[in-house]
Amino acid sequence: MLYISHDDIENFHHIYRINLINSCSGYKSANLIGTKSNDGIENVAVFSSVTHIGSNPPLLGFFLRPTTVLRNTYENIKSTGCYTINHIHEDILSDAHHTSAKYDANISEFDQTDLRSEYKNGFEAPFVKNAPLQLAMSYVEEYPIKANNTILVIGKINGIYLNQEVLDDDGFINLSKAKIATINGLDGYAIPKLKTRFGYQRPKPI
Amino acid sequence: MLYISHDDIENFHHIYRINLINSCSGYKSANLIGTKSNDGIENVAVFSSVTHIGSNPPLLGFFLRPTTVLRNTYENIKSTGCYTINHIHEDILSDAHHTSAKYDANISEFDQTDLRSEYKNGFEAPFVKNAPLQLAMSYVEEYPIKANNTILVIGKINGIYLNQEVLDDDGFINLSKAKIATINGLDGYAIPKLKTRFGYQRPKPI
Repeated sequence: MLYISHDDIENFHHIYRINLINSCSGYKSANLIGTKSNDGIENVAVFSSVTHIGSNPPLLGFFLRPTTVLRNTYENIKSTGCYTINHIHEDILSDAHHTSAKYDANISEFDQTDLRSEYKNGFEAPFVKNAPLQLAMSYVEEYPIKANNTILVIGKINGIYLNQEVLDDDGFINLSKAKIATINGLDGYAIPKLKTRFGYQRPKPI
Repeated sequence: MLYISHDDIENFHHIYRINLINSCSGYKSANLIGTKSNDGIENVAVFSSVTHIGSNPPLLGFFLRPTTVLRNTYENIKSTGCYTINHIHEDILSDAHHTSAKYDANISEFDQTDLRSEYKNGFEAPFVKNAPLQLAMSYVEEYPIKANNTILVIGKINGIYLNQEVLDDDGFINLSKAKIATINGLDGYAIPKLKTRFGYQRPKPI
């Protein structure tokens, strides 16, 4: 096997290092986070760091870099207290990935792509229309990460919209039935097919 | 679309809620974290929350529940300062998932499965033999999450072992070439195939 040392990582060209380290954690979630500013400007941006934190209460987290385009997302969440998480699926891969481009805060990615916003049940933040799984989120708390000045934002799931056919009898959401994407590295996308479910594991007799 | 409200989520049977909320974030990374206690007992456990935090320095995080089997992992990391992250691939899905069973701290999952440990370059924690991507990690810091008493553990990548053929010229690791898995919910596994890479996005002319 090839060995890449810490010194190698430090000495790589920064583009090479970004590609390498972004691929290291494995497959990532592929989500569009939708927000709206107090001025009414809608924002939508791709995130690959949305992570399950707990089921009861139902909590998800994601990491933000403070000095990028993603800052719009952070400012809108802080000022309104709410956001949406919308799953990227096969039909919108290219537009979803394009939301990583650095647009000014007064320009909405909904105007620069074929992605469309929708509003439901009086929730203030925009959902991405036709996303097969949409979550209404409310801000709970944040943690500034000292090691690299990122921010972990934690939110609570207030509501879930999904197509009935992806929901199994035991609550499992079959992501592959909805052709939901996963991200490899910074810019690689796959549409996985579920292979197997193993169920809850108990220790073997010793 | 079906709408599941916050009250619905609260009132579901807890198994249904765990399945549902664990599927909500999208596809997850599929990793085995390897550690060794000060008494020399090896531990290996499946995690689906390993997340990219930054490339420079190269940092990954993961979330721990403090009162489960995973506690062995946490105690070993705290006492030794090091651990390994090993990617789950097609050939070891069943054994990898079985490491979620709650074994006592004096029993090694390496003895209860066909997973085998290996040691390299003098690194103290055990790697999972034949994993196509293996990371040597050192503990950096942790954040107790107030919202649900989990812990975010952040570590630095000290070294990467991988097969040459999965590494592209620009540093991108093609996870699908190594048949690396992704997790859906608590117990669903898929082996994705890379569909496309989109590259870095710049704003369209306004």
